[in-house]
Amino acid sequence: MEEKQEYFTFTKSFILDSEKRFRTKLINSLAGIRQVALVGTKSSAGVENLAIFNSVIHLGAHPPLLGLLSRPDTVSRDTLENMIENGKYTLNFIDRKWVKDAHQTSARYAKEVSEFSATDFSSEYIGDCSAPFVKEAEIKIEMKLQQILDIEINNTKLMIGSVEWIQVLAERFTEDGLIKHHDLLLSGGLDAYYSAEMITQLEYAKP
Amino acid sequence: MEEKQEYFTFTKSFILDSEKRFRTKLINSLAGIRQVALVGTKSSAGVENLAIFNSVIHLGAHPPLLGLLSRPDTVSRDTLENMIENGKYTLNFIDRKWVKDAHQTSARYAKEVSEFSATDFSSEYIGDCSAPFVKEAEIKIEMKLQQILDIEINNTKLMIGSVEWIQVLAERFTEDGLIKHHDLLLSGGLDAYYSAEMITQLEYAKP
Repeated sequence: MEEKQEYFTFTKSFILDSEKRFRTKLINSLAGIRQVALVGTKSSAGVENLAIFNSVIHLGAHPPLLGLLSRPDTVSRDTLENMIENGKYTLNFIDRKWVKDAHQTSARYAKEVSEFSATDFSSEYIGDCSAPFVKEAEIKIEMKLQQILDIEINNTKLMIGSVEWIQVLAERFTEDGLIKHHDLLLSGGLDAYYSAEMITQLEYAKP
Repeated sequence: MEEKQEYFTFTKSFILDSEKRFRTKLINSLAGIRQVALVGTKSSAGVENLAIFNSVIHLGAHPPLLGLLSRPDTVSRDTLENMIENGKYTLNFIDRKWVKDAHQTSARYAKEVSEFSATDFSSEYIGDCSAPFVKEAEIKIEMKLQQILDIEINNTKLMIGSVEWIQVLAERFTEDGLIKHHDLLLSGGLDAYYSAEMITQLEYAKP
């Protein structure tokens, strides 16, 4: 006997007619779970900024490129301006225990306030990278801005950067090149946070 | 007493000089954990296709838009052609127990072979959507192709589509609009798979 399962369905007209906050949460969470990255930047006036993003995009390994999505109506505007002014920025992946501090960086602080002061994260400078890392992060990536792509259909921007330097907690790295992200903070949209465990690694699939 | 932690670091020249397979795995896994989507399409000749993607991008809720990244050197080429021919495609999120079948759709089958035949997934047609859904999926999304954006820096394409219809297992939906993705299959790059549990939901952050 098959268990009968219940589903909800949402039509396009229902979605378009729904209240704005409901729709934002629905579509933002619909897209699924993604990595939380704290993006560290520094303005030309020397003010540090730290902002939570859940839109890290793997663009390719040859050359090593990662994307970040910036929406005009979000707090990512300071980050965007700093990235353009400075050229360098950092991506920092953190343990799940940092969920409250990470979420706090999404508050709309004035541009002259550093989120490093408003949270328990510490800024750290490594090598010649002019943007701050998060000292507590288990995976740290130095990025260099390469291109900004306009996505005109909804006025967002894809910030494309090259991977310049990586630091990974030793136990997260395996010799074949895999970096493991178990127990790190993940996002499920605007306000829901997750963390993951590894299920398996599989061989290259053949027909 | 603070515990001393060990880190590995990778410089840009080390990354660029590393062997291709190592570098692909390193950068692909570096980007972090993301949702696994099975993308269902159908060619104009009527052949169904099912392909695993880990590049679902939330582009915005007003209008509801999701992106998918397509790289020229991957099996996503069939998917891309079908999306253009048909206009419609589906995104299907599945339980972690489907990891082997999901990974198997990444094999390079000939264009006339349906991955639905090669795996235990069943195709399902709902309403007037001309692309197949995965019957076993707990979250199903009907998409309509709106725009293809060329990312020339590394010859990839961002396929932008509008959300046309959603079906969600009832227990995954909460009244405020949140869709929950716990225990679904997640990707950590080329060959590593994860699943997640929810940690918390937090209030809108204020300074």
